[in-house]
Amino acid sequence: MNYQAYPAWARAARGEEAAETVFKNGRILNVFTGEVLPGDIAVCGDTVVGVGRYQGKREIDLGGQFVVPGFIDAHLHLESTMVTPPFLLESSVPCGTTTYIADPHEAANVMGWEGIRYFVDSTRKVPANVYFMLPSCVPATPFEMSGCTFSAAEMDKYKDYERVLGLGEVMDYVSVVTGEPEMMDKLAQFEGRPRDGHAPGLSGGDLSAYALAGIHTDHECMTFEDALEKRRMGMHIHVREGSAGKNLEALVAGIVESGVDTAGFSFCTDDAHIEDIRRQGHIDHCIRRAIALGLAPAKAYAMASINTAQCYGLRHLGAIAPGYQADFVVLRDLRRVDIAVVYHKGKDVAGWSAAAPPLAPDSPLRHTVHVAPLAPEAFRLKAMEGGQDVIGLIAGQLATEHLTRKLPAQNGWFVPCDGFNKLAVVERHHATGAVGVAPIMDYGLRDGAIATTVSHDSHNLLVAGDNDADMLAAVAELARVGGGYTIVSHGEPLATLPLSVLGLVSDQPYEEVEQKLHHMISLARKMGVPEGIEPFITLSFLALPVIPAIRLTPRGLFDVEKFAFIASQPE
Amino acid sequence: MNYQAYPAWARAARGEEAAETVFKNGRILNVFTGEVLPGDIAVCGDTVVGVGRYQGKREIDLGGQFVVPGFIDAHLHLESTMVTPPFLLESSVPCGTTTYIADPHEAANVMGWEGIRYFVDSTRKVPANVYFMLPSCVPATPFEMSGCTFSAAEMDKYKDYERVLGLGEVMDYVSVVTGEPEMMDKLAQFEGRPRDGHAPGLSGGDLSAYALAGIHTDHECMTFEDALEKRRMGMHIHVREGSAGKNLEALVAGIVESGVDTAGFSFCTDDAHIEDIRRQGHIDHCIRRAIALGLAPAKAYAMASINTAQCYGLRHLGAIAPGYQADFVVLRDLRRVDIAVVYHKGKDVAGWSAAAPPLAPDSPLRHTVHVAPLAPEAFRLKAMEGGQDVIGLIAGQLATEHLTRKLPAQNGWFVPCDGFNKLAVVERHHATGAVGVAPIMDYGLRDGAIATTVSHDSHNLLVAGDNDADMLAAVAELARVGGGYTIVSHGEPLATLPLSVLGLVSDQPYEEVEQKLHHMISLARKMGVPEGIEPFITLSFLALPVIPAIRLTPRGLFDVEKFAFIASQPE
Repeated sequence: MNYQAYPAWARAARGEEAAETVFKNGRILNVFTGEVLPGDIAVCGDTVVGVGRYQGKREIDLGGQFVVPGFIDAHLHLESTMVTPPFLLESSVPCGTTTYIADPHEAANVMGWEGIRYFVDSTRKVPANVYFMLPSCVPATPFEMSGCTFSAAEMDKYKDYERVLGLGEVMDYVSVVTGEPEMMDKLAQFEGRPRDGHAPGLSGGDLSAYALAGIHTDHECMTFEDALEKRRMGMHIHVREGSAGKNLEALVAGIVESGVDTAGFSFCTDDAHIEDIRRQGHIDHCIRRAIALGLAPAKAYAMASINTAQCYGLRHLGAIAPGYQADFVVLRDLRRVDIAVVYHKGKDVAGWSAAAPPLAPDSPLRHTVHVAPLAPEAFRLKAMEGGQDVIGLIAGQLATEHLTRKLPAQNGWFVPCDGFNKLAVVERHHATGAVGVAPIMDYGLRDGAIATTVSHDSHNLLVAGDNDADMLAAVAELARVGGGYTIVSHGEPLATLPLSVLGLVSDQPYEEVEQKLHHMISLARKMGVPEGIEPFITLSFLALPVIPAIRLTPRGLFDVEKFAFIASQPE
Repeated sequence: MNYQAYPAWARAARGEEAAETVFKNGRILNVFTGEVLPGDIAVCGDTVVGVGRYQGKREIDLGGQFVVPGFIDAHLHLESTMVTPPFLLESSVPCGTTTYIADPHEAANVMGWEGIRYFVDSTRKVPANVYFMLPSCVPATPFEMSGCTFSAAEMDKYKDYERVLGLGEVMDYVSVVTGEPEMMDKLAQFEGRPRDGHAPGLSGGDLSAYALAGIHTDHECMTFEDALEKRRMGMHIHVREGSAGKNLEALVAGIVESGVDTAGFSFCTDDAHIEDIRRQGHIDHCIRRAIALGLAPAKAYAMASINTAQCYGLRHLGAIAPGYQADFVVLRDLRRVDIAVVYHKGKDVAGWSAAAPPLAPDSPLRHTVHVAPLAPEAFRLKAMEGGQDVIGLIAGQLATEHLTRKLPAQNGWFVPCDGFNKLAVVERHHATGAVGVAPIMDYGLRDGAIATTVSHDSHNLLVAGDNDADMLAAVAELARVGGGYTIVSHGEPLATLPLSVLGLVSDQPYEEVEQKLHHMISLARKMGVPEGIEPFITLSFLALPVIPAIRLTPRGLFDVEKFAFIASQPE
């Protein structure tokens, strides 16, 4: 509360003076009681001072439309949208999302604090509340080759930096449950503050040990049973609906069927491409889907607002009540989440237009792709007589299957065909020349290669293809443009989306990115990548050794369940 | 979390090692999901490390009994129990209350920080968690004559003192809603921390202004409508069931009937005499009553545990789950709250016996009653021809009625009879000689006087009677013993309970106090004080000018609704 302003605001709250702005005749959702009540909303400065019957110096007639609190994305990586934050907000604020709890760990993996600071700086003057969780696992595991390490000592310097709420998703659950000292340091630094989890498939005793460490949230539940087990331990569940990880249907169906209390549930996108946000919406999409699945609207809106605000200790957000920030969404229809206007701090922001200052051409954030020269045989992979480890993709999931298959081969070398592609990850931060190669199944690519410098969380260069020549050409193309996405066929780039900020994010408006991305996805589909597999996003998780079951790093294949490298296969 | 101990505890959580103690075969209430699930509770040190199937170095078979989290009293004044904290806990811990959120504002009114510190010190080595809210209104209003003033500057010194959680109940709502600078200072000091409210009957715009100031709780709701209005503003409602203020039945009936979400409700006692705690229980009594009124047991237990812990940011309390302190109650019966054993930090504490160090005879806390000599006519009150303001008591309520009545009189002076008594309040901290006198209705006392140095919140000396001589004798008796309760008839004390610590609390074990109190209450009943009026507690609130509708201070009658003194009546 602004106690300088309070006396005047209190007079408005008491009806002794007209409030600065009064939104008249709303049907207002009260997230504390679940009621929809007719009334006016009185606003002074950026704050709701009263809900009831009020007169204002300025009055806006809502004509009986519904009003709900501004939506909160409980957990996202701004980097995953592929656009800079202002260009994201230009698309997502009109969807009603006025608060973002961001974990800039992609940026940190590429460039440490300098990478994080770019996101903090670029969200200072935007029409939304953007908070940060400080990345806890950079690199995600000790086995990875990232651009930077973000240590406990480093974290200590920035833990009270502006808009830093708590500790970012603790992916390295092995370090947690084994009590690794550096991880204990990080957890201890955020004692009493929010600490995000990331525990796909963790259960029983391991999950108990993880919760015991003081980790409060999880956004990796794929089944309701998983979510329920975590809720029983007091963890807050972020129901994720992103571009690749889509858990909403399974979890909300379970919530509806069981009737479990929803106070411990929120919505998040985690990783969502700008293209998907433009097409289907943002948190509004989660609410709409949840209501369609049978969840009571009041509960769905609470999952998008007060539940999350309380989870993160944001006492001024998530409700329309005295003392809460005037972030709210006016709806033509409650069940369809049909948005008329979005207010942030009492101002109409749905039409806000980003004026993002361009990043200087010589900014170090633009020069982050450093690949050692690759020999023509760099991606050669021996085929084993008795069969070998293969990464199996699963439609609509980030998880992979750990398969054993006998591969198609010529002269003892694996030759992609019959549903098998080749995947390579090339270290791209320090030009070490480290390269991992493995077979993947069901990616479906024919006659070319697809590559990306977005590859969670170390963001090395990932390339998949059915022939080594196109794969090498794709690597060369991304090195040339300073990172991004590319599709190559017969040695030529068919399309390239430069992501020149850290190799992760475009500096262009979303229309450009969206158009290019749309084109590239169509192209990938034509080249065989099936529906259910996001050509770039699915690819971008294949190097992340904290999601089951098998992943590829520049040091070789990694068994996530055993949390160890798979003995390297002889050439 | 104790991160030094964590690695070993995590091994126990994961089942790699036996836990220190395992409570086997419980039926455990999960307050997050509302389920009762069979299982074992594994404890290391003071913390639950896992719930499920566990082996322990030491195992305690619960034989299928129910286990619920230790109860939390969301708001109480330890002083009101009339015994020192160790003697209170000896009685209330066996009732399952393992956490107490105390506001030592009675002590502060008598002796400022020295008074508060006595309660902090005396709860350091006890088998319960005792937290403090720093008193915000000492004195309760600017109109009062208390022993001490606890200013914003003073508060700043102690706001981070051990176990201080937040700002104590803000009773002076006028100072809040008018933006009085000292009050703004106090509120600002506790920004981001819990700030307790006290807003009986506050509604509409005034309540909006009060909530706008950042006040989060209220324990003064007398009707469900009142509670619902406050919940709509996001305030957390403490359902009070104390010795005098009994709001549980009205509020729980409303909760049950409306089906409103109970996450924003807790239980508290506020002011409970040791005698009542011994007779009917503590928070267990609230749970039992709520279940009997139709509230689902899981919700009632949550109101006594996790709801309150979350309200006050006590992340380690209120649930039986990994990382939560091992405070739990074993029950023979869930609906009857039939308690078998109480565990605090994993230890059986139901049989804990207080070994309270006695307060030194020369401690300044024992010498707090300083009354100026009173003339025989000190309590004379003129009777007005046309009728005059009378304090009307209401059975079972702290609120009073502001009545206008023509009083019985002789020679123009009010003479108590026909349901009218005389009430006087004598300043007792600085021997100023200030005395307020007023008529009260329905106290019912005949042939004597009843006096107390417990009189919220300034704790001046209150005396009620039907004749001035007994009233004067009662004042003399309390001055003699250093404060307490007394009943006088025909000039002689019939019984006196010395409350020699601050004039508020006995230093004797509860049996002594209970026995004496029981005897004195019977005596008061025989002398005419009717059922529904607590002879001492009801009296002790009659000088508190923040509860409607009319109160008496040493400066005269006070109209709480107008928040102003009633023009003094000519002698």
